Amino acid sequence: MCGIVGAVAERNIANILLEGLKRLEYRGYDSAGLSVIQNGELRRERQVGKVQALVDAVGENPEFFNGHIGIAHTRWATHGEPAQKNAHPHVSGKIAVVHNGIVENYSELKDELIAKGYTFTSQTDTEVVAHLIHDLYKQNPDLLEAVRAVIPRLHGAFALGIIHVDCPDELITVRLGSPLVIGVGIGENFIASDQLALLPVTNRFMYLEEGDIAKLTRHGIEVFADGQKVTRKIHEIDAKQHNADKGEFKHYMLKEIYEQPDAVAKTLEMGVDNGNTEQLRTDFLQRHEAALGGVRHIQVIACGTSYHAGLVAKYWFENLTRLPCSVEVASEFRYRNPVVIDNSLVICISQSGETADTLSALRDIQSQSPKGLVTLALCNVATSSLVRETDIFLPTLAGPEIGVASTKAFTTQLAALMLLVLKTGVTQGRINQDTLTTLLSQIQELPGQLYASLHLDGAIQEMSEHFEDKKSCLFLGRGLQFPIALEGALKLKEISYIHAEGYAAGELKHGPLALVDKDMPIVVLAPKDSMFDKLKANMQEVHARHGELFVFASESSQMSADERTHVVSVPDVCETLAPIVYSIPVQLLSYHVAVLRGTDVDQPRNLAKSVTVE
Amino acid sequence: MCGIVGAVAERNIANILLEGLKRLEYRGYDSAGLSVIQNGELRRERQVGKVQALVDAVGENPEFFNGHIGIAHTRWATHGEPAQKNAHPHVSGKIAVVHNGIVENYSELKDELIAKGYTFTSQTDTEVVAHLIHDLYKQNPDLLEAVRAVIPRLHGAFALGIIHVDCPDELITVRLGSPLVIGVGIGENFIASDQLALLPVTNRFMYLEEGDIAKLTRHGIEVFADGQKVTRKIHEIDAKQHNADKGEFKHYMLKEIYEQPDAVAKTLEMGVDNGNTEQLRTDFLQRHEAALGGVRHIQVIACGTSYHAGLVAKYWFENLTRLPCSVEVASEFRYRNPVVIDNSLVICISQSGETADTLSALRDIQSQSPKGLVTLALCNVATSSLVRETDIFLPTLAGPEIGVASTKAFTTQLAALMLLVLKTGVTQGRINQDTLTTLLSQIQELPGQLYASLHLDGAIQEMSEHFEDKKSCLFLGRGLQFPIALEGALKLKEISYIHAEGYAAGELKHGPLALVDKDMPIVVLAPKDSMFDKLKANMQEVHARHGELFVFASESSQMSADERTHVVSVPDVCETLAPIVYSIPVQLLSYHVAVLRGTDVDQPRNLAKSVTVE
Repeated sequence: MCGIVGAVAERNIANILLEGLKRLEYRGYDSAGLSVIQNGELRRERQVGKVQALVDAVGENPEFFNGHIGIAHTRWATHGEPAQKNAHPHVSGKIAVVHNGIVENYSELKDELIAKGYTFTSQTDTEVVAHLIHDLYKQNPDLLEAVRAVIPRLHGAFALGIIHVDCPDELITVRLGSPLVIGVGIGENFIASDQLALLPVTNRFMYLEEGDIAKLTRHGIEVFADGQKVTRKIHEIDAKQHNADKGEFKHYMLKEIYEQPDAVAKTLEMGVDNGNTEQLRTDFLQRHEAALGGVRHIQVIACGTSYHAGLVAKYWFENLTRLPCSVEVASEFRYRNPVVIDNSLVICISQSGETADTLSALRDIQSQSPKGLVTLALCNVATSSLVRETDIFLPTLAGPEIGVASTKAFTTQLAALMLLVLKTGVTQGRINQDTLTTLLSQIQELPGQLYASLHLDGAIQEMSEHFEDKKSCLFLGRGLQFPIALEGALKLKEISYIHAEGYAAGELKHGPLALVDKDMPIVVLAPKDSMFDKLKANMQEVHARHGELFVFASESSQMSADERTHVVSVPDVCETLAPIVYSIPVQLLSYHVAVLRGTDVDQPRNLAKSVTVE
Repeated sequence: MCGIVGAVAERNIANILLEGLKRLEYRGYDSAGLSVIQNGELRRERQVGKVQALVDAVGENPEFFNGHIGIAHTRWATHGEPAQKNAHPHVSGKIAVVHNGIVENYSELKDELIAKGYTFTSQTDTEVVAHLIHDLYKQNPDLLEAVRAVIPRLHGAFALGIIHVDCPDELITVRLGSPLVIGVGIGENFIASDQLALLPVTNRFMYLEEGDIAKLTRHGIEVFADGQKVTRKIHEIDAKQHNADKGEFKHYMLKEIYEQPDAVAKTLEMGVDNGNTEQLRTDFLQRHEAALGGVRHIQVIACGTSYHAGLVAKYWFENLTRLPCSVEVASEFRYRNPVVIDNSLVICISQSGETADTLSALRDIQSQSPKGLVTLALCNVATSSLVRETDIFLPTLAGPEIGVASTKAFTTQLAALMLLVLKTGVTQGRINQDTLTTLLSQIQELPGQLYASLHLDGAIQEMSEHFEDKKSCLFLGRGLQFPIALEGALKLKEISYIHAEGYAAGELKHGPLALVDKDMPIVVLAPKDSMFDKLKANMQEVHARHGELFVFASESSQMSADERTHVVSVPDVCETLAPIVYSIPVQLLSYHVAVLRGTDVDQPRNLAKSVTVE
């Protein structure tokens, strides 16, 4: 999704920019670049590949990049392939621009600028922004005014950082649909796509609102909204918010898989007191009881892995509380003129809290003002846009997640959703004491079961060898395991580049069974639950057609293996919480397959962690 | 899914059984077999492969299979691979059994029978039925009584045909969860999984109800329900209901693709008078106006291709009538204790009207008796179980569909759903005259647009060459084209065995983009509609990563091709009806790819047309 950093300071800022980019690399790693102004000249370096390539290039001639003002960028390609010419910053004369987001009408603007005599050196949508500013600055040499005049001409969602050789103490920035924070230093100021990038230089941040344009100098920050100067609050960040390191683990992803028992336990403790199976903690969502009490329908909006967490919540909500629940992919929901039922609780799930489609879908719902609307953000980042724009914040206490393929964010989302289902059900008298007691006691066993499931690591690593040379794969589940089948397939796709697809096992015979032969491994999530017998029949259908089965089954079901059926026995767990436990084996399977195939596990090709473009 | 035929007559019935099997081959074609009783002996022949193999085997020694009573079977494997030993009929002593469906508890029963000394010669669940009947008949030599006593011991869903050498004028049949009809002849009687099998010998049929057990002799039919003798009505079938032939086409599928303009026009004529853009036909669903007027929520239940039709209906219902609509795969819906909202219209979509999961889901909802429930069957077979068990029958006038991969059933489902959306919206005053007039006029242009889209056949055949050697493929769409992307992927899966997956284009960056490289073709459904600009950005994301794009775009959008972007221009069509038109190019693409790859287009491996097992 691209990451932006910018700085204006008395000291040399090149290393601040490079350190910031490294911390933003989760946002994109196709190519990177920086520009600084030195002695009235624009200096630029751009490299294809990860940020380290840029660090190396700058390191060859550090004096050349000494400067007191500059902007930098790490790219996740949208328009134009990853190539040096497409890397940011983009330059027009003495102006340099970095950009995160998409300018949808760039091709019309490009035609117009070509007609005016501008030459394009890249395939990006960003270059039009540089030339447009250049064109307006010619007529009125005021950088802030030129940027202001350009913004209405750009359709889409974006954040920008802009510098001009003739204004060597002015860093202009714009936020419109993509995240951007200002870091407030002492005699120096910064911009970045994520405050994470700036933690080494400041702990004070200003969050821009949509449409804000700001001018940063060494000594001041001026913010404008609708042409008027406005004030934006400065937040001081807790010192604990620091980045993680891999410790003893080979990859962040593996570390994060192993952190799940603790992260889930921590998240559950928000609502459940250890040893208490009578009631939820009284302080859990206490001040939102009135709001939750009035809810008659649940609407979940999310993307990717978070969407799969929402699908599990649908089964839980309907089964345990009898409140109807709809779940939809945000990019579809927001564009199809959906009906929002009165008295809906809208749950937005996003690890980063910045997912562009989810945020826009939320805003669309709010603009419809349905009766009795309650909005809730389920996020891992407390300072995120989604959290700021919703009524209720339900955190996942996963800690920073660095691996691009989400693991502990997913299971903590499930844990938090279970608490929310219970809280809503209890508040509305829809869950009786017996059910509550049973579930509270099962919840307290869950972290132990998650630890136990990590012991399957060795067996799963062995199993993973069967997947090394495969091109395709199916994941099957029924009921609460259907979303886990989807999630398992997504994990394998993301990091091993094997085409894995998740299916509700009952749909197999309506088409995908045609794919089944000895080269198509079939992973099955088969806890001994109310659907186990039906699932066994589905497995027989595969087996009869020479498909190779890889089954995660309950220990107590004593499933027998044969030459085409491989079984890993998962510790027994109650049906309701089984999706959380069964997430771990499918994560481990994907991880080990990816390691065998030698892919970049933590930063898989083409992807980025926080999807802030549409 | 398996197909059953049985006959008891004065004449030799071997050829009646074989002709019936050929007509049931759409239900399964892994292996086939028949048993007749001749001179106090059970004669059996079984062959792996299509029915023709059985016809050839019997033809080598026709005298040997002369008989006046017999049963036959064509198999779609569930338990045990396709092999002669697993083909039906299964025999125990003098008893022969054919079976469609699944006996879920067969492995416990098998252990019990082995303990009693029975030897098993197959891996099927069916063989336990034969031995169980044998065991009980020993104690009390009455075949009907033995069958009656066995039924409560079998868990699952099934239809059975049973004969015994010692009762050479008695054909026993059971219907419990799988379809079965009795054909009533003159001095002869028949059973079959589908009346289609018996049309050459009779036009009178008796439809058994769930749980019915019947005894057929040459001169009589006795039906028992709950131990009591009951009467079931005899229906006479319209002489027009005949099978289709391929005519000039190489495959049924291609013929059925080309029949779509007519089939859709015919279906639309149920509700729309040509030339009238003022109102729907007054007789369309007239007697259900009160029921439709009270509906406040729509629940669609379906499987496979029919599920995709339901997804389109969701967009239409919510956008045009603002009635909330949920769509769910039947095999998931029925097992997860779902909430059925009061005043729901439950739409069951199934070409055959016999899809086991859809039928069971309907029955589960009916047993919950939610307030104001209205049920509707959208089916291609007027005499099907779904039609008999719902309040409203909305037919698709597609004519018999023979190709296992559904084409004209899908587009006629969409046409009928559009009529239903309009009827419901108009009845409730939720669609105003302007919208109605616009849509009625667009609907009348639709058959012409479908004809025009068939002209793309040559261009698509050329495009298909790029797919011949591919292993994987993605289909992308947004909004109303998202379900068509799912359907396009399903078609390609079913008949070409390429692992194709459909995705909402906005979800691409949340994972599947990691799969994209030069070996992964990306098919994009890109009509010039309200989401075209967003979709273009998604295509750029693919293009930047060296993915090869195959785009179906509106003529008027003048999309330009390049070395990695292939474009087929589809005639312009309004956004609302575009999913019907864009179905044709994706069907044609799948068809031509399958022909190039040399697969069995009309009867792809592992599949069957009408899915009457769970």
